[in-house]
Amino acid sequence: MTHSPIDYSAASHEVQAVYDDIKATRGVDDVNLFWKYLAHHPELLRHTFERLKGVMAPGALDSPTKEMLYLAVSIAHGCDYCIASHTAAARQKGMSAAMEGELLAVVAMASQTNRLATALRVPVDPGLQP
Amino acid sequence: MTHSPIDYSAASHEVQAVYDDIKATRGVDDVNLFWKYLAHHPELLRHTFERLKGVMAPGALDSPTKEMLYLAVSIAHGCDYCIASHTAAARQKGMSAAMEGELLAVVAMASQTNRLATALRVPVDPGLQP
Amino acid sequence: MTHSPIDYSAASHEVQAVYDDIKATRGVDDVNLFWKYLAHHPELLRHTFERLKGVMAPGALDSPTKEMLYLAVSIAHGCDYCIASHTAAARQKGMSAAMEGELLAVVAMASQTNRLATALRVPVDPGLQP
Amino acid sequence: MTHSPIDYSAASHEVQAVYDDIKATRGVDDVNLFWKYLAHHPELLRHTFERLKGVMAPGALDSPTKEMLYLAVSIAHGCDYCIASHTAAARQKGMSAAMEGELLAVVAMASQTNRLATALRVPVDPGLQP
Amino acid sequence: MTHSPIDYSAASHEVQAVYDDIKATRGVDDVNLFWKYLAHHPELLRHTFERLKGVMAPGALDSPTKEMLYLAVSIAHGCDYCIASHTAAARQKGMSAAMEGELLAVVAMASQTNRLATALRVPVDPGLQP
Amino acid sequence: MTHSPIDYSAASHEVQAVYDDIKATRGVDDVNLFWKYLAHHPELLRHTFERLKGVMAPGALDSPTKEMLYLAVSIAHGCDYCIASHTAAARQKGMSAAMEGELLAVVAMASQTNRLATALRVPVDPGLQP
Repeated sequence: MTHSPIDYSAASHEVQAVYDDIKATRGVDDVNLFWKYLAHHPELLRHTFERLKGVMAPGALDSPTKEMLYLAVSIAHGCDYCIASHTAAARQKGMSAAMEGELLAVVAMASQTNRLATALRVPVDPGLQP
Repeated sequence: MTHSPIDYSAASHEVQAVYDDIKATRGVDDVNLFWKYLAHHPELLRHTFERLKGVMAPGALDSPTKEMLYLAVSIAHGCDYCIASHTAAARQKGMSAAMEGELLAVVAMASQTNRLATALRVPVDPGLQP
Repeated sequence: MTHSPIDYSAASHEVQAVYDDIKATRGVDDVNLFWKYLAHHPELLRHTFERLKGVMAPGALDSPTKEMLYLAVSIAHGCDYCIASHTAAARQKGMSAAMEGELLAVVAMASQTNRLATALRVPVDPGLQP
Repeated sequence: MTHSPIDYSAASHEVQAVYDDIKATRGVDDVNLFWKYLAHHPELLRHTFERLKGVMAPGALDSPTKEMLYLAVSIAHGCDYCIASHTAAARQKGMSAAMEGELLAVVAMASQTNRLATALRVPVDPGLQP
Repeated sequence: MTHSPIDYSAASHEVQAVYDDIKATRGVDDVNLFWKYLAHHPELLRHTFERLKGVMAPGALDSPTKEMLYLAVSIAHGCDYCIASHTAAARQKGMSAAMEGELLAVVAMASQTNRLATALRVPVDPGLQP
Repeated sequence: MTHSPIDYSAASHEVQAVYDDIKATRGVDDVNLFWKYLAHHPELLRHTFERLKGVMAPGALDSPTKEMLYLAVSIAHGCDYCIASHTAAARQKGMSAAMEGELLAVVAMASQTNRLATALRVPVDPGLQP
């Protein structure tokens, strides 16, 4: 058994404190499996959630936009778990079915022109050069 | 010489028609190098621009959001040309420096949790199952 | 049914010889499913194991370091099977829980700076140029 | 001009403080271009270096091993800048030419078996299941 | 439940028309799950199938070659669903077991030299420059 | 200077022997830069070329098909050097401009459906299950 979750009752105080922070921040009764698997490495767990909390807070970009960007990157990286959780999160933050369809169309479009520009070894236009 | 651009004056009528469409749609005097390299394959050129024009038109998502999603995917795919052109396009559509910084922070955050969720082989939570 | 395993008893002599080599090299009673699926292509099976055996033998790098590098690459490539098998192999060769946590932290760190350096199109510093 | 560096003299006090930390930590006279490009986003700059400093400090894994893992991930992600800088860093920390050759052989080996296991859709062996 | 299929009987007329086109084009009784999941976004569904039908029709390249290219890209991108469906399609179009073994060997070979050329930051030979 | 080429006159006898094999096999006067950069690691150089020579020899698949598969994988992996060298090789083996355009169209098509199938988390159809 190479990977496994750690439930609240079996967790160290350090891990429980992070679980408590996640539950309070999100208003949920239990934490997702991602955190329970990451809990084998308490420092990494704590750091990851603290940074996530800061990065995903609304700022110059609102929450649904941030969640949609997160989802788009997760699709490009092929992370099945992340796609499931951030699709749910984006919908909860306000991504409608129409918005989701357009997000998918943009991802599909970018995927093909990304590969075409790479395939053709197109040099960056002088006006876009650093 | 494996790849090269085709300028307007050297292009076929079919390719010129696409170049004209790009210039009219975007209000520019010349098309970017991406299109000039793709012009070796006129059907692919025409299809790609027509689809791009449709996908990137504002709809349920506005133009800056679409450009930022495009940019995020291009970063994840490592397409240097696409990053340069869509950074410029997103800024032109209204992405501020603060928005760009937050976009980068979300991309960086997603990149690390994507790999962590994959590394830990986290199963999708029952509530997120199809 | 697009893909399937070939067990020892159903295998050709050529495939059985590779299975025997794997079992003797690793001191195991049966070969992993990877080899049983690859066995549909005996030349590829034989070549892959022979090369793997040579590459993973301890040399300037010791076995746990090689297994951890293998695991890190497999995470970046998103190969679920490889992550499972090389996590187990790395642990067997001596990767402790603390080492595994640090490996994950390095992979997460690299994943984000890889994307940031790409996103910002940072030119290579003159002192690092070829 | 879509991306550009910020030199020390042109940087804000917040950015200069991070530059000073990088220079002190590494014992160098100037910071690499990565940091100068990231400096357009001071919070991201500061967070990224602070986390990097913590993650890359020797612990259960020593510095050369951490740098080699960083390099392996950077190769898999195709980040040219990161490959240049972490090849230099790994060599400085003690990666010999022989170790570098073996690292490359492991990366090449993992790259091919990652794709083969994915291509063959090999299920994870029961003994490796979570 | 984040993602789900739409069966013919539950589909809109617009979606049913695409399903009918797929069934007629391929001579099958029902459409694959890919289309049933994509059907939540009818415009994207219709566009994707229409383009696919055009791109995959035999032309300068015959059908088995196109399917094998599709499969090779799907392996490199790590799309499990696409590997399953295009392995089946390639076999149906005439990919023999020997051809499949050679395809896998080429993909494995390219995967390792792709990473080695990237790792070594090899500049493009003058004769291959654009 | 992190990476550099080794010319014939500066190479060891072991490396020269591989260079001679490459030149004889391909009927060229000098070897490409890829081999000159890889020559810092003679065993990896020799192994890589020997395997490449075997894999790319015509068999159940002819040479242009193998080169096109190699090119398609190199595009998906984003290896600029490999795209340049295998575009040239594929053309030399008989890939016409029309074939190249169709290859690009297939790669673009696969890139988008790969991401869509992943984004929608489509389960493999029962008839395609292992």
